[in-house]
Amino acid sequence: MVTATEPMVEEAEDALGNVEMSPQRLEAFSDGVFAIAITLLILEVHAPGPEAMRAGLGDALLHLWPSYAAYSVTFLLIGMIWLNHHLVFHYITKVDRPLMILNLMMLLSVAFLPFPTAVLADAVTVGHGEKVAAALYGIVLILGGVFFNAIWIYASRDHQHLGGHITPEQARRIRVRFGIGPFLYLTAVLISIFNATVSICFYVVLLISYFIDVSPKSSRPQATSPEPPKEY
Amino acid sequence: MVTATEPMVEEAEDALGNVEMSPQRLEAFSDGVFAIAITLLILEVHAPGPEAMRAGLGDALLHLWPSYAAYSVTFLLIGMIWLNHHLVFHYITKVDRPLMILNLMMLLSVAFLPFPTAVLADAVTVGHGEKVAAALYGIVLILGGVFFNAIWIYASRDHQHLGGHITPEQARRIRVRFGIGPFLYLTAVLISIFNATVSICFYVVLLISYFIDVSPKSSRPQATSPEPPKEY
Amino acid sequence: MVTATEPMVEEAEDALGNVEMSPQRLEAFSDGVFAIAITLLILEVHAPGPEAMRAGLGDALLHLWPSYAAYSVTFLLIGMIWLNHHLVFHYITKVDRPLMILNLMMLLSVAFLPFPTAVLADAVTVGHGEKVAAALYGIVLILGGVFFNAIWIYASRDHQHLGGHITPEQARRIRVRFGIGPFLYLTAVLISIFNATVSICFYVVLLISYFIDVSPKSSRPQATSPEPPKEY
Amino acid sequence: MVTATEPMVEEAEDALGNVEMSPQRLEAFSDGVFAIAITLLILEVHAPGPEAMRAGLGDALLHLWPSYAAYSVTFLLIGMIWLNHHLVFHYITKVDRPLMILNLMMLLSVAFLPFPTAVLADAVTVGHGEKVAAALYGIVLILGGVFFNAIWIYASRDHQHLGGHITPEQARRIRVRFGIGPFLYLTAVLISIFNATVSICFYVVLLISYFIDVSPKSSRPQATSPEPPKEY
Repeated sequence: MVTATEPMVEEAEDALGNVEMSPQRLEAFSDGVFAIAITLLILEVHAPGPEAMRAGLGDALLHLWPSYAAYSVTFLLIGMIWLNHHLVFHYITKVDRPLMILNLMMLLSVAFLPFPTAVLADAVTVGHGEKVAAALYGIVLILGGVFFNAIWIYASRDHQHLGGHITPEQARRIRVRFGIGPFLYLTAVLISIFNATVSICFYVVLLISYFIDVSPKSSRPQATSPEPPKEY
Repeated sequence: MVTATEPMVEEAEDALGNVEMSPQRLEAFSDGVFAIAITLLILEVHAPGPEAMRAGLGDALLHLWPSYAAYSVTFLLIGMIWLNHHLVFHYITKVDRPLMILNLMMLLSVAFLPFPTAVLADAVTVGHGEKVAAALYGIVLILGGVFFNAIWIYASRDHQHLGGHITPEQARRIRVRFGIGPFLYLTAVLISIFNATVSICFYVVLLISYFIDVSPKSSRPQATSPEPPKEY
Repeated sequence: MVTATEPMVEEAEDALGNVEMSPQRLEAFSDGVFAIAITLLILEVHAPGPEAMRAGLGDALLHLWPSYAAYSVTFLLIGMIWLNHHLVFHYITKVDRPLMILNLMMLLSVAFLPFPTAVLADAVTVGHGEKVAAALYGIVLILGGVFFNAIWIYASRDHQHLGGHITPEQARRIRVRFGIGPFLYLTAVLISIFNATVSICFYVVLLISYFIDVSPKSSRPQATSPEPPKEY
Repeated sequence: MVTATEPMVEEAEDALGNVEMSPQRLEAFSDGVFAIAITLLILEVHAPGPEAMRAGLGDALLHLWPSYAAYSVTFLLIGMIWLNHHLVFHYITKVDRPLMILNLMMLLSVAFLPFPTAVLADAVTVGHGEKVAAALYGIVLILGGVFFNAIWIYASRDHQHLGGHITPEQARRIRVRFGIGPFLYLTAVLISIFNATVSICFYVVLLISYFIDVSPKSSRPQATSPEPPKEY
């Protein structure tokens, strides 16, 4: 509801432009979106109808395995994105409007995920359109990954949004680390052109490697780490 | 569950009337409603049925483009309202019952948005009723804008709800700025009488101009700005 | 997942029994349930189908007025319950398990409201069952009111859950004030046996009287009020 | 979006591995999932259709009693899990990635509950598949209980995630106490092979015994309790 600027409201414009939001508030809002997104995933898993119940509920429930799998994969993927979001916002000390907008775009992509999840589960259940569904799933993940990277690139570019407890070199490494994400999802999309199942397995492998990869590092030598373990 | 007052409960009435809520608590509650509203928008985007999947999932998904567009526009519109809400509550230091009620009415309008969003997406998909749907969408936005303005007008009227870090002049400018909103949405509603597509484009243009308009002002001279950048 | 006690785990039992929750945490959780309940109300308002759109979207939308009304009434009723909840928890300084359970039962009743709201809207739209629907609506409100009162009665009984900034006399008055609620809703249920419309109007009148009744008291003499305005 | 490690990003890896999350943040996120899960349970309770309304709304509503019961039982079960979650996180002072992942798996199981709740309610209403539905319900509870126990076992194993206000002996007792949970649910699943109703009653009895069991202990002698009542 804010329109184009006019000189006479310069001061209010400054007031509007300069009101920042604390990173904690933005993170709390994003946490809310992540939490709601994963919790309403179950609404896309539909209970078998009365006819299927009369025919045999056990079979009908087993027949729904793609829905359970899709629910679990997307649940954990969004959980992973939440953990990564916490990581980058751990270092961000200043939030301005462009960062809020990039964050909104990332949330828009992640909040969209229940749809391709349902489409993928239904496609596998029905037995048609799996490739298209797997590709759609990956495209939405690419979108989310692109905006996620945009958040960190914008925040770390001039290092002005970050505090003193991260060096530019560390910031760059995090950029490299997260920058791989969208390309991995692009690979999954390309694979889906040929084989939906391999593409889907690719998502699962990505998820597993993420969780294995982030096992506690407490036993690792921290010779090159200049800062103590961060605690929020 | 509170009834009409009787003299003998004057004291409790004072207790009831005078219990205020911190602006932070009201903002947190509103943030929750905004976050839930944008995240459940995706539930109105329905996956194609089994027949459409067998016929061709790619086509069925492309056919749903109005739903994706409506989802995105409403998602970002509510995001914009959330950012504006944060702005005004940044300045509000005192919350009383009328303010809580005006805020509830604004939330009621914003939380209603998933319905006209679904109606608009369906109308465009089906090819009938687009004008009515575009008008409904705008009417709900007008409602939200009216209550939003009411919040700020009430809070800034005697300046008693605001803290010392905003001048009455700045408060007035914010009133002017936000006051334009409902009229812009009214324009969109009037346009929709003639042409739904132009009306919908109008919403998108409003959104884009808002986001472009609020690019960082850090390079702007702040000669007339008496207060330092606000941080929450 | 906690079973019957056995003597040998006495200490852990004490540990389990004595872990309290801060009132702030319980209030935040309840706020979450209130916010989600009001925001997902809109999911019960269904967009007209393609046939209705082709026949005439304007008429179809007008035909849905009971859904809009039911949405608004329940939205504001839950908002009112939220404000009252804030009031009582403003005074509660100690939360133990019984209080947490009573609060859960109250939340269970309030979170149930979207169902009778949908039933009432549908009954009025279809033109059958309005009396039963109005009665159901009132019964759920009675339930919520009973548990709400139970919370305050339990908390204020020995005054041990309350802090020093409320006198037993004020606590009693709040008990009286809220105690009227379930009886008002019972009246509405009894009315619905004879006339659904009057019963529904009764809910609206209750709502309006609540909102008018809680206009700012700042101009009222506070001669009998021993404590200053509370701020959270 | 994090891939396999390579030596040259050791430092960023350390940065990624060592960024911890405060227990408060993890608990707030979990609280959000619990609150959303219980509040969207009502979406699985469907209002009777127009034909049922014309036939007789009262009967149609009474016919839905399994949905009301399932809603209430699951609502309170998740409420109980929330209270237990608060208990264990009261003692946890340090959160690392494995703990975050175990917590996500627990949330995945709990957030899945609306599905078996709907299946159970529908099965009882339709009169077919009750045993399978009761077994499914119990299996999901077992899953949630296993991950819940995993959280506490991992956190209390070397006592390094716990603060000084709990002794290893007390930690062990809590492990024993919660460890019984999954076996109780397994019993319910085994019972369901023979009789669905007894199995369902078993869940209700578990719930009641939990709530009776956790009545206030303030009058109990705390001779063996070394720490004062905890307050969050």
